[in-house]
Amino acid sequence: MAECIFCKIVAGEIPCTKVYEDEKILAFEDIQPLAPVHIIVVPKRHVSTIMDIEDAEGDMPAELFNAVRQVARITGVDEPGFRVVINSNRDGGQIIFHLHVHVIGGRKLSDGLG
Amino acid sequence: MAECIFCKIVAGEIPCTKVYEDEKILAFEDIQPLAPVHIIVVPKRHVSTIMDIEDAEGDMPAELFNAVRQVARITGVDEPGFRVVINSNRDGGQIIFHLHVHVIGGRKLSDGLG
Repeated sequence: MAECIFCKIVAGEIPCTKVYEDEKILAFEDIQPLAPVHIIVVPKRHVSTIMDIEDAEGDMPAELFNAVRQVARITGVDEPGFRVVINSNRDGGQIIFHLHVHVIGGRKLSDGLG
Repeated sequence: MAECIFCKIVAGEIPCTKVYEDEKILAFEDIQPLAPVHIIVVPKRHVSTIMDIEDAEGDMPAELFNAVRQVARITGVDEPGFRVVINSNRDGGQIIFHLHVHVIGGRKLSDGLG
C-alpha cells in the first residue's frame, strides 16, 4: 500500500520510536500520545480494519495479542494495568486504515470508553 | 470460578441478553451500556486478564476476534464503525476479572480513549 503511513513506517521509510518487533508485528510510540504510555501495534502485512482479518489472516489475532503482552511488559504497564483499543471505521474513530491496536497506560484511565 | 459473574452468565446461572454464541465464546448486552450498541464478548473458559492468555490459550485471540466480527455484523455496526476495548487491571479500569472484550458503537465515538 504505497500511500499507507503505517506501511511506510513498517518499511522504514518514515521513522518511528520502536518498542517491539517480531517477524509479523511492529510496535512503536504514538506521536500524539493520550497517556504516558501509548503504543501502536500493527501487523506488518496491510489489513484495513478488524473486519478484514477473516480466514486468510488466521494467525494475526494471536500475533497481535502476543505483541500486546510483550509491549505491556516492556513498558511496565502489565501489572498496574492498561487499555487495549481497536477503532474500526468512522463511528469508531479510525483515522489510519491500516489495522492497529492502541496500548494505553501509565495513568489511571477513565471509565468512559468513548 | 464459582464467584465469577461472567462464569455464572456462561453457565446460565445469571440471565443475559445473548447476542452471539459459539462453542468457545459468549457475547451479551452490557447491562450499563455506554452507547446504543455495547456488547460484552467473553471466552467461556475463565481467564482473568489479557496477560493470562499465553500459550495455553493459543486459539483464544482468534476466537475472540471472530466473535467480535460476528457481533459487529449482527448489531449492524460493522459498516458505520465501532470500537473494541479490552481493559486490564486497575489502571485499565478492569472491574470483572474474567477477560472480556467491549464492542461499542451505534454513535460517533469520541477521539479520547480514556
